[in-house]
Amino acid sequence: MKITFNQRLKNSCIEKNSFLCIGLDLDPSKLTEYGGSSLSSMESFGKEIIDGTIDFCPIYKPNFAFFERFGSKGYVVLENLIKYIDNRALVIADAKRGDIGNTSKYYANSIFEQLGCDAITLSPYMGRDSIEPFIQNPQKGVFVLAVTSNLGGKEIQCHGGSTDLLYNKVIQMANELNTLDNIGLVVGATKTDTMENIRKNSDGMPWLIPGIGSQGGDLNAALTISNKGGIGVVNVSRSILYSGDGNVKLAIKSAMSYTDRIREIICNQMNY
Amino acid sequence: MKITFNQRLKNSCIEKNSFLCIGLDLDPSKLTEYGGSSLSSMESFGKEIIDGTIDFCPIYKPNFAFFERFGSKGYVVLENLIKYIDNRALVIADAKRGDIGNTSKYYANSIFEQLGCDAITLSPYMGRDSIEPFIQNPQKGVFVLAVTSNLGGKEIQCHGGSTDLLYNKVIQMANELNTLDNIGLVVGATKTDTMENIRKNSDGMPWLIPGIGSQGGDLNAALTISNKGGIGVVNVSRSILYSGDGNVKLAIKSAMSYTDRIREIICNQMNY
Repeated sequence: MKITFNQRLKNSCIEKNSFLCIGLDLDPSKLTEYGGSSLSSMESFGKEIIDGTIDFCPIYKPNFAFFERFGSKGYVVLENLIKYIDNRALVIADAKRGDIGNTSKYYANSIFEQLGCDAITLSPYMGRDSIEPFIQNPQKGVFVLAVTSNLGGKEIQCHGGSTDLLYNKVIQMANELNTLDNIGLVVGATKTDTMENIRKNSDGMPWLIPGIGSQGGDLNAALTISNKGGIGVVNVSRSILYSGDGNVKLAIKSAMSYTDRIREIICNQMNY
Repeated sequence: MKITFNQRLKNSCIEKNSFLCIGLDLDPSKLTEYGGSSLSSMESFGKEIIDGTIDFCPIYKPNFAFFERFGSKGYVVLENLIKYIDNRALVIADAKRGDIGNTSKYYANSIFEQLGCDAITLSPYMGRDSIEPFIQNPQKGVFVLAVTSNLGGKEIQCHGGSTDLLYNKVIQMANELNTLDNIGLVVGATKTDTMENIRKNSDGMPWLIPGIGSQGGDLNAALTISNKGGIGVVNVSRSILYSGDGNVKLAIKSAMSYTDRIREIICNQMNY
């Protein structure tokens, strides 16, 4: 029997004993210590980060904007890095797609078949028929934006007021669609009580949690709450990649340090 | 003084005497009559469509999914087609992006500087700070998803009920952000009374209207309502491109026929 995406995510976290997702927000202009801001530096820096972290990192999340801004040549770097990971970890395409059925179907082809990613982040604004084309294969998954970590998210995501929050409708929709066990949510590291409520409403669904590190979210609360009744994976990008202005050793050290903290907070207390 | 995007859009429609946007949803598998389903066929078919319509078509809208599904090689075709248009018409990137500030900034670089598009479609789910990085240059514009033409859109976009519709909040947000006159809305060709209400709430902002043609929207109502108090541009993709299974002459004939209908419905009655 084929294993569902949500189960693959859990297995990957158990195997590497970590809930860290390294965000590949690769920015050549921040690689001064690495010696060059070319696309080939970007690619080789990315590969060195992967080499130095693949043994303990269960998930990587390339941020498509950082590649697309260099056009087709940037897209080649994206393809090369995903190939380089080569199924040694899961890859979440941070692309935030979402369109009508026919178009979403082609985005799904692009992300899952063409690029070989395991999951994608999606915006729910166009409704459930914009999500369905991405969840046809149980082995491939989606993370639907529910509550995001940016300041402006609240205006839209909390529309309807406290008794009828839009993000709760999004969570309900995601729950209803999750018949093949391949849907998760993007939940920013936010207030403890908000996260606890969201966890109740999304029982069993994995979370991808941005907002840790540079954005200042609380790692401890995010991990503890999200990992009750599901898997919660924290994404860290800049605080790892640029902790040493392009010094690979310092970046890997930062990733290892996050891993140690994650293990201390949550892995050591879990009964798988 | 530099001309704003919304003014450029209006000028382009006046110059070409049309409100047609041709959606470049290029699908090589539908080009049987064109003789080949390769990427180079896709590119040359696209160029022939552009050649045959550029004199009367004010706007083209490449649908990014149709290119991204072929990876970096598809992205090259996208780049080539935009270069080929070469400012002889406006180009709206149908990419439906939207992310936190830093990432949105890079998407904006990608679309406006790297690819040279004039505007982009955006999802509003992440709020106003996800839109702001795209509207810094008044000459470049955005179309924010308000009401989409797919069946499932309603569940999210009408959240809050008839007195507090989410899409009205999105329109209000877009209005507030539109200080540089470079924001428009995506409004699907839907019920007449809905479109009339949306037009009242979005006075002055241009609309990009999908849902005409294969999706069955009412061209007459869409054009008449949207062009009161603003510019309304109708997008047609498949009903033009594949009207002849890849026969370029039939596709151009279909584009010309839409243009004739648009001129009859609206251009001939307008006082610019």
